[in-house]
Amino acid sequence: MAIIGRLKLKAQIFRGGEPAIGPGKADLLEAIDREGSISAAGRAMGMSYRRTWLLVDSLNRCWKARVVETIAGGGRDKGARLTPFGRTVLETYRAFEAKLAAVTDDVSYKTLISLIRDESQPDEP
Amino acid sequence: MAIIGRLKLKAQIFRGGEPAIGPGKADLLEAIDREGSISAAGRAMGMSYRRTWLLVDSLNRCWKARVVETIAGGGRDKGARLTPFGRTVLETYRAFEAKLAAVTDDVSYKTLISLIRDESQPDEP
Repeated sequence: MAIIGRLKLKAQIFRGGEPAIGPGKADLLEAIDREGSISAAGRAMGMSYRRTWLLVDSLNRCWKARVVETIAGGGRDKGARLTPFGRTVLETYRAFEAKLAAVTDDVSYKTLISLIRDESQPDEP
Repeated sequence: MAIIGRLKLKAQIFRGGEPAIGPGKADLLEAIDREGSISAAGRAMGMSYRRTWLLVDSLNRCWKARVVETIAGGGRDKGARLTPFGRTVLETYRAFEAKLAAVTDDVSYKTLISLIRDESQPDEP
């Protein structure tokens, strides 16, 4: 969920009934990139091991190539990294989110903001 | 939640911790406009009477003027309508959503779509 001032935006792109990418999956890809392991990424995001792996499996099924690959080694904590393809998916999604966020420059958004009651004012009109 | 092809978008604009407008509240305003009553609008949306009224109360607190007004009469099914101010809020939010949806013309969105695995293809890369 991207937060830009008073705006919260959630953008998901679907393959069939499944989000191929959205805020949670993008954050997970970033966490894997940072942590170097799928289970460490899940822990960093407060997700169960099972849920983390299901999301990685979904990501790897939804795109034309793998986005996450595990690195030689055994056990739960073996390493993982984004593939170059996965990095492209992540960076392109972040670019798409930035384009969406830029719509806060539109007159429609500025008008809505101008019509919201000041938070310091009493609630009832 | 606006759906544009493969894209699902949820845009909420907050006053403090409370969404002043978002997909659900905008749909409720439209339903009140169509049904002419708050309780009928709630029924049409499959929401409880209590939840519907809480949303209307939140709407009327979040904006600089009332967005929904009830019309003389008694009982649960008394009429309601959007104020002219409420109509402006609704129409401006829909214009904002349309601007967001237009970002599907951006190269970032087209790139993501081009990278999603064809739904008719086997899942595993």
